[in-house]
Amino acid sequence: MISVSEARNLISQNNTKRKFGELQLLDALSCSLAESVPSPIDSPPFNQSAVDGYAFSNFQCDLNKPLLVIGEVQAGNVSDVVLKPQQAIRIFTGAPLPESADTVVMQEKVLLDSSHITITDQNLKQGSNVRLKGSQIKSGQLAVDKLQLLNPAAISFLAGIGIHKVNVFLKPSVHIIVTGKELVSPENSISNGEIYESNSFGIRAGLNQLFINEVSVEMVDDNQDYIESCILKALNSDIVVLTGGVSVGDYDFVALALTNCGVKTIFHKVKQKPGKPFYFGKYQDTLFFGLPGNPASVMACFYEYVIPAIHEFMGKQTPKCNYLPLGEAIHKKAGLTHFLKGQTDLVTVKALAGQESYLMNSFAIANCLIELQEQKEVYNKGDLVKVRLLQ
Amino acid sequence: MISVSEARNLISQNNTKRKFGELQLLDALSCSLAESVPSPIDSPPFNQSAVDGYAFSNFQCDLNKPLLVIGEVQAGNVSDVVLKPQQAIRIFTGAPLPESADTVVMQEKVLLDSSHITITDQNLKQGSNVRLKGSQIKSGQLAVDKLQLLNPAAISFLAGIGIHKVNVFLKPSVHIIVTGKELVSPENSISNGEIYESNSFGIRAGLNQLFINEVSVEMVDDNQDYIESCILKALNSDIVVLTGGVSVGDYDFVALALTNCGVKTIFHKVKQKPGKPFYFGKYQDTLFFGLPGNPASVMACFYEYVIPAIHEFMGKQTPKCNYLPLGEAIHKKAGLTHFLKGQTDLVTVKALAGQESYLMNSFAIANCLIELQEQKEVYNKGDLVKVRLLQ
Repeated sequence: MISVSEARNLISQNNTKRKFGELQLLDALSCSLAESVPSPIDSPPFNQSAVDGYAFSNFQCDLNKPLLVIGEVQAGNVSDVVLKPQQAIRIFTGAPLPESADTVVMQEKVLLDSSHITITDQNLKQGSNVRLKGSQIKSGQLAVDKLQLLNPAAISFLAGIGIHKVNVFLKPSVHIIVTGKELVSPENSISNGEIYESNSFGIRAGLNQLFINEVSVEMVDDNQDYIESCILKALNSDIVVLTGGVSVGDYDFVALALTNCGVKTIFHKVKQKPGKPFYFGKYQDTLFFGLPGNPASVMACFYEYVIPAIHEFMGKQTPKCNYLPLGEAIHKKAGLTHFLKGQTDLVTVKALAGQESYLMNSFAIANCLIELQEQKEVYNKGDLVKVRLLQ
Repeated sequence: MISVSEARNLISQNNTKRKFGELQLLDALSCSLAESVPSPIDSPPFNQSAVDGYAFSNFQCDLNKPLLVIGEVQAGNVSDVVLKPQQAIRIFTGAPLPESADTVVMQEKVLLDSSHITITDQNLKQGSNVRLKGSQIKSGQLAVDKLQLLNPAAISFLAGIGIHKVNVFLKPSVHIIVTGKELVSPENSISNGEIYESNSFGIRAGLNQLFINEVSVEMVDDNQDYIESCILKALNSDIVVLTGGVSVGDYDFVALALTNCGVKTIFHKVKQKPGKPFYFGKYQDTLFFGLPGNPASVMACFYEYVIPAIHEFMGKQTPKCNYLPLGEAIHKKAGLTHFLKGQTDLVTVKALAGQESYLMNSFAIANCLIELQEQKEVYNKGDLVKVRLLQ
C-alpha cells in the first residue's frame, strides 16, 4: 500500500500523452496553448488617443497661447491633415493621431472659444494621453506563451491582436464503466437489494465542469467476462474511470479483469480514507482509474486524482489548494491520509458531520475537501490544513 | 458618481427577476434549487453490509464459539434465509442483510474452517459494519434545501435517492451589444484606424464558463439610431451587456440611446479604476450593463458586476473573495476603488505591470483581481487585500 503522495507521483509520471489541435478561439477556452503565439500585428496598430480631447504637435505649439482646431477624427476614421504650428484637431478615444500630432489634451482640460482651445492642463507633457503604436505588443513579439491557460481575458487579448484560431492541448476522451449488480438508473424504481446508480452522475457532472464532452458511460454487472469486454472496448479512450469492484471481495473483478485485458497495474491500494482500494493502471497511453464504489470515495478520488490528471493531460496546472485554519479540532488515527468533506468561507474551514464513505448528504453541501496528513493524529483549532475548493 | 459598494447594492436591489423550471438532473449542474427536495426513499433502502464479511444475529450467537455459514448474499441479491442460533451468512459490501441478521464481521477478522467461522474481532458490537436502512436519509425528509447549489456531489446524492429531474433557477439569457465604428472581427484584417473587436470574445468566454448558452452578440456602429434599434431588439433578454460608447464623448451614444428606449438609468459612473463610466439601468425586468469599451475595463466590470449579478439572478451566492497579503507595497491616490490585474499562489498576491485599461497582455496572465479601497493610499507589503480569483 502506497502513500497519497506516491500515488500522485505515479499518476503524474505515467500521464505522458498529449493531444493537440487547432481550435476556434472561443472553443479553446480553458485549454492551454500547445505552442507560443507571436503577435501578428503591432498593438495598438497606430498611435491612438487614450481620451476624448484635442491632438497637436508638442514641438510646434506654444501651449500658453490658444490653438486653432482645424478638424476632427473619430475612432474608426483616419485624418490625413498635416497640423501646422498652433493647430490642433478634435480627437476621440481610440482614434488614430494624425502623423503630425504627438500629444493629446483631455477635453476637460481646455477652455473652448469657438474654434480655439486654451490648454489648462499644467501637467501635460509630450506624449500625454497617447497610446503609442506597438506599446502593448509589437508584431512578431511573443503574445501568449506555450502552456498558458486560455481564460476569458487571454481569449480577449488574442482576439484583440487578430488571432481567431489557436493550437491547444485537447481535452481527453473519458469512458466511465460503472460496475455493480445492485445498481438501477434513477429513472427506474428499485426492488429490494437494489440501489440507485449515482456515481456516473457525479463523475459526468465533474467532467461537464471541465468542459470535457467526449464522455461515454457503460453500466455492467459484477461479472468478470462482461467487465473484460467493457474494458476491451475502452482501450482507445484517453482516460477510463471504473467504479466499484476494485476491492478484494469475491465479486471484485475489476483489477483482475484489467490485468487480463493487458492493463498494467501501476498501483492498487493507497493509504487514504476514503478510497483505500483505489487502483491505477495503464495500457499503452490510456490511463485507468479504478475507484471504490462508495459514492463519497468516488467523488473524493475523482477530485483528488482524476481531475488533476485531466488537468495535466491538458498541459494545465491543477488549481492550487488553500491552507486555512481549522475552526474546530480534529483527531484521527495515524496511518492514512484523510480527505474530509468540509465547508469553508475562505477564512476558516470545518469538517462536516457524516464522513462515512456511503454518505452523500454531507458531500452535497460541502464546498471543499480537507486533507489531513497520514501520520498526524491531532489537529488543534487554528491549525492550518490543506483545503481543495470544490466548484 | 457613486462608490463601488453603492453600485453593488443598487445592482443587487434591482436584480429581482428569477426564472425557474424543471431540468434533467445533469443539466441542472451549477444551478441552485428553486424548491427543496424531499427524499422519495429511505437511503440506504435496506440494512446494508458496509464490508465483505459474514452477517449474523448478535442476540442469537455466542461469539466465542464457531458459527456455521449457511449461504451467501451478494450486492444486488436478496437472501430470505432465516438465521438460527450460531448461524451466519457470507455477505458482500452493499448487500442487504437477511432480516434475522443485525451485525457483520469483516472477512479479515474471522478464521475460516470449511463451513465454519471463528470471530477474532474483539471490538465487534451489535450493529457493527451495518448501514441501517434510512441512516443517510428517511423517506420524506429534506434531502437538499431550496437554493442549494447543485455541484457534482449534490448531483450524485440526488441520483442516489432516485431523483432524475429537479426544479432549479434557470440561467439568464444574455445579449451583448458591442459598439464602435473602429471594430473589425478578428477573422478579417484591419485598415488604418481600425482595431480588432475583442470584447465580445472575452464576455462570451466568461459566459461559457458559467454555462450560459442563451447568448447573442450584435456589433453596431457609433450611431445613435442603430444603437437604439439594437437596444429595442434586446428588451426581452434577461441581461444586456453593452460595451463602448458609455462615456461622455461626442460619439458616446449608449446612455442616451438607452434612455430613449425607456431604460431607466439606475446609475452612471462609479468611483473606480478601470471602468469609471460604468452604466447600469433597468427596463421592466431586464438589466442593462454599459461597460466602458477598453478591454481591461470590460473584463474588470464583467467580473466585478456582471458575473455576480448572473449568480444572483440564478439564486446563487457569488464565490467568496480571498484576503491575502500583498507581496509588494502599492501606492495609489485616494478617491477611486482600484481593480488591479494580479497573480496569486494563494499565499501572497502581487499586482502585475501593465494596469492601463487598454492593456490585455497583463490580464491574459492574471489569475485574480486585487481590490484596493477607495480612500486608502498606501498599501504596505504584507497588508491583506481583497482578491477575486479568476478561473
